[in-house]
Amino acid sequence: MSVAEKIELKPIGFVRTKAVGKEVRDKGNVAEIVFREDLEEALDGIEDFSHMFVIFWMHEISKEDRRTMKVHPRGRRDMPLLGAFATRTPHRPNPIGLTVVELLKVEGNVATVRGLDAFNGTPVLDIKPFDYWDVPEHASVPEWWIKLEKKKQRKRGTSK
Amino acid sequence: MSVAEKIELKPIGFVRTKAVGKEVRDKGNVAEIVFREDLEEALDGIEDFSHMFVIFWMHEISKEDRRTMKVHPRGRRDMPLLGAFATRTPHRPNPIGLTVVELLKVEGNVATVRGLDAFNGTPVLDIKPFDYWDVPEHASVPEWWIKLEKKKQRKRGTSK
Repeated sequence: MSVAEKIELKPIGFVRTKAVGKEVRDKGNVAEIVFREDLEEALDGIEDFSHMFVIFWMHEISKEDRRTMKVHPRGRRDMPLLGAFATRTPHRPNPIGLTVVELLKVEGNVATVRGLDAFNGTPVLDIKPFDYWDVPEHASVPEWWIKLEKKKQRKRGTSK
Repeated sequence: MSVAEKIELKPIGFVRTKAVGKEVRDKGNVAEIVFREDLEEALDGIEDFSHMFVIFWMHEISKEDRRTMKVHPRGRRDMPLLGAFATRTPHRPNPIGLTVVELLKVEGNVATVRGLDAFNGTPVLDIKPFDYWDVPEHASVPEWWIKLEKKKQRKRGTSK
């Protein structure tokens, strides 16, 4: 396969949420994933995990935004200018979203989840159960990340 | 966007590894990700994270295998028959791989990583820095997962 070659995916389902704008980033936000009916059977057993990864396609990102190379995290000028891959910006070559969500229930082809930061109608590409193999023993993050995190906490007024 | 609509992605790079067959599953396996040269700039700052997610395309999975609905985890008959989405099987509608790897170094457009369970030539779709927001506070997994994990540990002869 050459670098130029393209990969084609078909969504496994779509996000259904009433949250709009910044509301989708609220960790307490409850949303649904409506799976394709032909895939309902493939969900069997996922309900025994408390959390799962959702891999989705941020379809509202423009072609131009996909060419972004450098960003300030969260658009903050007081943060360093970084490569898009060093951040979670949706402005990246393949605007794939990745979020660990809490799985509340599964009914038929609909999963109800908490903490999915995706807009209504977002195509879902895959889900995977979350387990302990996904947690490195000693992970470290840059100074700017810790600084940004502390600012978010202060804003929220929480200790977490 | 309708369910039938397709999403097109272009790889951001490819996996380079000498590991073959089961060797790629060895957590100590060191591999390289060779990024597209036009994306080198987007890597700036990723080296300050100790770990990152690699999202890749398991291109060797056939169309037929993508239609798999039910599997026994790791192909073991002593494990329950589960929906593909409740497991990490590569046999899934969109064969997307997701692995947290240790980032050893970045030189130009090449990242050296430990623990990437992907074959040589695998297209990479995205990378994301790993941080503490990806770790749920209280995650639980099913009984079968714990049982499988214990068996793996015994086989390895480790206490982890």
